Amino acid sequence: MAQRTTLKEFESVFPKLEETLLAHAKKYNLPQKELEWYKKSLETNTLGGKCNRGMSVPDSVSALLGGPLSEEQYFQAAALGWMTELLQAFFLVSDDIMDSSITRRGKPCWYRQEGVGMVAINDAFMLESAIYTLLKTYFRQHPSYVALLELFHEVTFQTEIGQLCDLLTAPEDNVNLDNFSMEKYRFIVVYKTAYYSFYLPVALALHQLNIATPKNLKQAEDILIPLGEYFQIQDDYLDNFGLPEHIGKIGTDIMDNKCSWLVNQALAIATPEQRKILEENYGRKDKDKEAAVKKLYDELQLEQRYKEYEEKRVGEIRELISKVDETEGLKKEVFEAFLSKIYKRSK
Amino acid sequence: MAQRTTLKEFESVFPKLEETLLAHAKKYNLPQKELEWYKKSLETNTLGGKCNRGMSVPDSVSALLGGPLSEEQYFQAAALGWMTELLQAFFLVSDDIMDSSITRRGKPCWYRQEGVGMVAINDAFMLESAIYTLLKTYFRQHPSYVALLELFHEVTFQTEIGQLCDLLTAPEDNVNLDNFSMEKYRFIVVYKTAYYSFYLPVALALHQLNIATPKNLKQAEDILIPLGEYFQIQDDYLDNFGLPEHIGKIGTDIMDNKCSWLVNQALAIATPEQRKILEENYGRKDKDKEAAVKKLYDELQLEQRYKEYEEKRVGEIRELISKVDETEGLKKEVFEAFLSKIYKRSK
Repeated sequence: MAQRTTLKEFESVFPKLEETLLAHAKKYNLPQKELEWYKKSLETNTLGGKCNRGMSVPDSVSALLGGPLSEEQYFQAAALGWMTELLQAFFLVSDDIMDSSITRRGKPCWYRQEGVGMVAINDAFMLESAIYTLLKTYFRQHPSYVALLELFHEVTFQTEIGQLCDLLTAPEDNVNLDNFSMEKYRFIVVYKTAYYSFYLPVALALHQLNIATPKNLKQAEDILIPLGEYFQIQDDYLDNFGLPEHIGKIGTDIMDNKCSWLVNQALAIATPEQRKILEENYGRKDKDKEAAVKKLYDELQLEQRYKEYEEKRVGEIRELISKVDETEGLKKEVFEAFLSKIYKRSK
Repeated sequence: MAQRTTLKEFESVFPKLEETLLAHAKKYNLPQKELEWYKKSLETNTLGGKCNRGMSVPDSVSALLGGPLSEEQYFQAAALGWMTELLQAFFLVSDDIMDSSITRRGKPCWYRQEGVGMVAINDAFMLESAIYTLLKTYFRQHPSYVALLELFHEVTFQTEIGQLCDLLTAPEDNVNLDNFSMEKYRFIVVYKTAYYSFYLPVALALHQLNIATPKNLKQAEDILIPLGEYFQIQDDYLDNFGLPEHIGKIGTDIMDNKCSWLVNQALAIATPEQRKILEENYGRKDKDKEAAVKKLYDELQLEQRYKEYEEKRVGEIRELISKVDETEGLKKEVFEAFLSKIYKRSK
């Protein structure tokens, strides 16, 4: 039976990876002040999250092996997990600048911290570079080394085109609902989120165990991309319908002009009068206008619509999982673990 | 006899590479508007420069082979050259944001162009990603594929630590000459400029020809890093002592609080009174204060000091070149070509 890793266990691997990264910078005689800056950026931007993405690498390896991991196996899986977290850190540090975000994980965004500013752009680059330093240090002899490099490159690019589409579709300062569509929505969600958050950790686990056959990778992708899409739609749903005490924040998607599942659903079924309400109230930093949109969402019964979507989608994903061919070492349990963490979550 | 490539010849390879990059994005169904954005970013940020770095790849391959290149050899060398230009584009787009620069190559910086803004950060990422898409497309079967990936990763990281040190040593808004030193100066120049501008093109040429032995790489590094340092010192010299009609711009290093070779030399030999002049006038956006610094540079005879440095340094580099061991396929001519392009240049 596969065991779930804990945040504590996962975090216990970080110091060794950090040491490797700092030693690598020291090799070039990076001056002390800059070394401390790098250390602080690494810690501030990589630690302190829930690490769901990172921990799903050891969890997947464990599910694939059907039992507990040796110390060496756990270290490798956790190292790959931390690389996933570094990739996310690279994106979050820079997304926060691009989105003019204020806080991240309850603290000021890195670029807004004392003395940081636009240096954060270079810090984001260094977080990305850290991935390749760790891969070279720990996986250079691994049969999948090249495939791992190419996987990170490809998923990085996929996330970048998702971010590009998001930035051009929903600029915060220019509300134009004609830009939105379910097709655009799907593109953004799949590329900006699903590949790096869902496909990447499982693909890494398959590579670690040398069972990343084309068939296994394809099966993983075919389930994890719809799963990632469902996850993001749920996120959009919770932003409006979730309880702040559960989700740990107050949703701001309406005021932020986000290309959310809810607004796309509303646009798809709105009468011309209802569309007018959206046109006049969506994407404004105004509590009354936000309330008008929320009222419309209720009239359009979007909560009910979401719940129907969820049941249908989860049914389809379960069906996909039941058909997984395990002959090349893939296990249904990998996907069941993901689904059970997500289904009907309230936070 | 090695032939020099021309800008026209080098640029003629770009459309094919661009097509490959756009086709790769299209494969993911990137919407039309985003595809056009990517195309515009690629062209605006990669084309229009002198391409000295990029062209030095085919020039080095040609010097190493001692004769003209076949069509296939030229294409490979030019592709690697364009990857060097893409790496530079990635850095310049983001450096311009970090430095609040106004113009680049006579036009507004990319982030200052109509409708771009902070999207430029993501565009910079996509320029970097383009390197790996091209490597995978054209070098996947090359025996040096892994070494090429690792070389780009390492040089990227080196440039990032150079940029970090530059940003922390000479913030535009906080003049503190105590931060400066020749040691810091050397670190910034070597990592921020010399590795990607001088070492990278030659290392790429050696890899293309499968003669990137540890000894050849070491010999190249040992000459090209001092050469790159000399190049940057010359750049700093020309910023103040060069003729605007030659260098194509009016130098602003003094007003921009740059950690320049000149100010470091001045600090090293200034009397307490002269240091006070620097403290009070360096790094201010004020023509009179700039003039006071320029006057001090003249009093300190920095022009003469530079010329002595140049003769000494060029002598040392020539000595290094004369001792190159050519038994593993490296050629002195590679370095002689670089040196002759640089020595006593006025632009």
